Amino acid sequence: MNPDLMESLGRILGDRLGTSDAIRAQHGSGESFHPPDPPDAVAFVDSTAEVAAVVAACAEHETPVVPFGAGTSLEGHVNAVRGGVCIALGGMTRVLHLSQEDMDCRVEAGLTRLGLESELKGTGLFFPVDPGADATLGGMVSTGASGTTTVRYGTMRENVLGLTVVLANGRVIRTGTRARKSSAGYDLTRLFVGAEGTLGIVTEVALRLRGVPEAVASAVCSFPGLEAAVNAVTLTIQTGVPVARAELLDDVQMDAVNRFSGFEYPIQPTLFLEFHGSPDSVREQSEAVAEICAELGGTGFRWATRTEDRNELWHARHEAYYAGLALRPGARGWATDVCVPLSELAGSIVATRADIDAEGLTAPIVGHVGDGNFHVLFIIDPDDEVEMAKADRVNSRMIDRAIAVGGTCTGEHGVGFGKMPYLAKEHGEALETMADLKRALDPRNLMNPGKVIG
Amino acid sequence: MNPDLMESLGRILGDRLGTSDAIRAQHGSGESFHPPDPPDAVAFVDSTAEVAAVVAACAEHETPVVPFGAGTSLEGHVNAVRGGVCIALGGMTRVLHLSQEDMDCRVEAGLTRLGLESELKGTGLFFPVDPGADATLGGMVSTGASGTTTVRYGTMRENVLGLTVVLANGRVIRTGTRARKSSAGYDLTRLFVGAEGTLGIVTEVALRLRGVPEAVASAVCSFPGLEAAVNAVTLTIQTGVPVARAELLDDVQMDAVNRFSGFEYPIQPTLFLEFHGSPDSVREQSEAVAEICAELGGTGFRWATRTEDRNELWHARHEAYYAGLALRPGARGWATDVCVPLSELAGSIVATRADIDAEGLTAPIVGHVGDGNFHVLFIIDPDDEVEMAKADRVNSRMIDRAIAVGGTCTGEHGVGFGKMPYLAKEHGEALETMADLKRALDPRNLMNPGKVIG
Repeated sequence: MNPDLMESLGRILGDRLGTSDAIRAQHGSGESFHPPDPPDAVAFVDSTAEVAAVVAACAEHETPVVPFGAGTSLEGHVNAVRGGVCIALGGMTRVLHLSQEDMDCRVEAGLTRLGLESELKGTGLFFPVDPGADATLGGMVSTGASGTTTVRYGTMRENVLGLTVVLANGRVIRTGTRARKSSAGYDLTRLFVGAEGTLGIVTEVALRLRGVPEAVASAVCSFPGLEAAVNAVTLTIQTGVPVARAELLDDVQMDAVNRFSGFEYPIQPTLFLEFHGSPDSVREQSEAVAEICAELGGTGFRWATRTEDRNELWHARHEAYYAGLALRPGARGWATDVCVPLSELAGSIVATRADIDAEGLTAPIVGHVGDGNFHVLFIIDPDDEVEMAKADRVNSRMIDRAIAVGGTCTGEHGVGFGKMPYLAKEHGEALETMADLKRALDPRNLMNPGKVIG
Repeated sequence: MNPDLMESLGRILGDRLGTSDAIRAQHGSGESFHPPDPPDAVAFVDSTAEVAAVVAACAEHETPVVPFGAGTSLEGHVNAVRGGVCIALGGMTRVLHLSQEDMDCRVEAGLTRLGLESELKGTGLFFPVDPGADATLGGMVSTGASGTTTVRYGTMRENVLGLTVVLANGRVIRTGTRARKSSAGYDLTRLFVGAEGTLGIVTEVALRLRGVPEAVASAVCSFPGLEAAVNAVTLTIQTGVPVARAELLDDVQMDAVNRFSGFEYPIQPTLFLEFHGSPDSVREQSEAVAEICAELGGTGFRWATRTEDRNELWHARHEAYYAGLALRPGARGWATDVCVPLSELAGSIVATRADIDAEGLTAPIVGHVGDGNFHVLFIIDPDDEVEMAKADRVNSRMIDRAIAVGGTCTGEHGVGFGKMPYLAKEHGEALETMADLKRALDPRNLMNPGKVIG
């Protein structure tokens, strides 16, 4: 890397500039199967002003910058594919503002989801977006994260009130206000949500919070087929039951959790449900859904409200990822996702399962059914080219089918570079408009280059 | 207007090109007090292809285009302030797609909210965003509309799945998919929501629909002061009651509806509430809120579930606008709005009421309390310069106070040209980023010029 730039960065960061092979390697990839691309240096920043100074220094030397949170991304978002400086925000974890009355907060982008959870303890408030991984809030903004509770509480898009963003020229802007809604100009907040650091680096996040529900009920039910399980959730939503979580595990996944945790669930598609509300309301919701499940051939419906019982019921869901990996010791996981209209979900999963089986791959399927979103976890050996090619083909065909029925190539994992080849098919001419926006905000293509937009 | 352009437009539209003074005058303003600016011609378009052809022809002659829906906007959005061609979309009212299973639809931008309501009759579905006026869906997208049900169902931002948009160069793009969520690239949909036609013209809108609730309950309660009324709603939300509507009418507004409709309500701040759910759930919600209201000094709490009784209870709210105008026969209404954090709402309304009274103006206040959004309706004589200057000062000070406490200069009316002077104060440097986006998508400033971005 340019020695003048190194000197500038050293002046800004002191000993918080990392250049050792170990530190660079740690910051060269997320949790995905994609091979790593280490940055030339890692800037352990401590404030928005430092991020702005680092970005400005890099801009002066035409050097790319790549933001890095907790490194939990799945499609190569954090890989330094063109080298440059990794801006590691994990040290920026301050809570800048928290209002119980307004049910909102403003935090630095490096605070993680679970870090926020512990900050909120005792306030009666919680932040509902739960992608599973303990990602940073800045990372969750940047991938437009969602997860198990999205069916009730929405994605990051619906729960971010505003941002502080460092632009390509080193200038700092604040988007949004503390008001719950606004019609005052272009929605910059939502433009940076899901932009994966390619339009600017998010350094602060203002979030909408929710009241911790008075009561929570969890439920589990097995189904004779995928269609019945999906239809149970569709009908639940149509009936107006405000289900808070509705997770589907397919038969391969249920077999995996049985083996991993010693359960004896039927090897059948199984729904894991959760209800939030008053004690009366969660009982009413559970009863209504039990009836719907029974009508559709669901069996073994169990529900619980005590925390220990609920945790036990949901244990199988929480273990799904590691149970999947354990199907083949030593193998890696390649997690991919698509999202389709609800009416297409059962068909999409059935077709994908058949394709996986025809290729002879091991790959459990888990779905956020209420959103039409499902995940395939290929259990693979990244060094086996034949196997990787098979997984790639199954992934491509799954995406093609999703796009053909009006869906999207990724519901929540994001694009990184892993899903870039599919954007043209999904967006058509609109991809050119995205490129126009990229050129407008980052004319020299230095903000996380090689991601999202080619 | 350029005769070559007139000829081109005539070829595209035949007799659907209006140039008479009457037609031009009809399309020169919305419902606001702002004086009209008639366009040079009105293109009564019938398809996306026609809009694209008109935009391309106008671009060739450097002529502005201004989209027009139902003409219900309040800040001069549809005024042709630099002349040019009005693109009237009111004839484009087809329902292109409607899925009960997926609870979504795709409609042409000229369909109005009530038009959609009648299309959805018998499906068990409804579209929840209700700004009051019978605006077109395209117009509601373009102002980022919201309204009485936003506290429960969100604004247009949360309820639009995708759009068809004609860009400045005449190209047509589709944004979004039929999937409920996506992380596949920049969120173009949300960029056009609230852009007021300055980045492109929305011709089709894909919407998320909701299940008609099994039961609805309405309630009314009077309060000794604004603070108590606002606190009742805040507490309701914090407690997790999923209130569907929470409208505040101040004492001046209550006096107006008493006079207009012969009611005998106490001349006090009054809440109008609505609850959606199962019969048990709406009873439980109503009882919980009745208790909260009583604790805060609320009196005369009444609630009802039968449609006729509910309509009677909410009659005063529905008549608020006309009751306000009737306070001074012959006068016009100037409606303005701001949105602030909930904790600042009571203070903002009290300060605004004091300011209105000090200036000697007549102006009832109505608020969507759950969102922190409130409206002032100045009842004025637009020809009285002194009075107009007073209203302008009250409006400016209300906005300054809103911005000072972290709020926005408009929660749902939009910018048009009426609120343009306040954007710099609200957004700071971020306004420059908005201008960058405008230049990127409309480099010759022909899309509704003179609105939002200067």
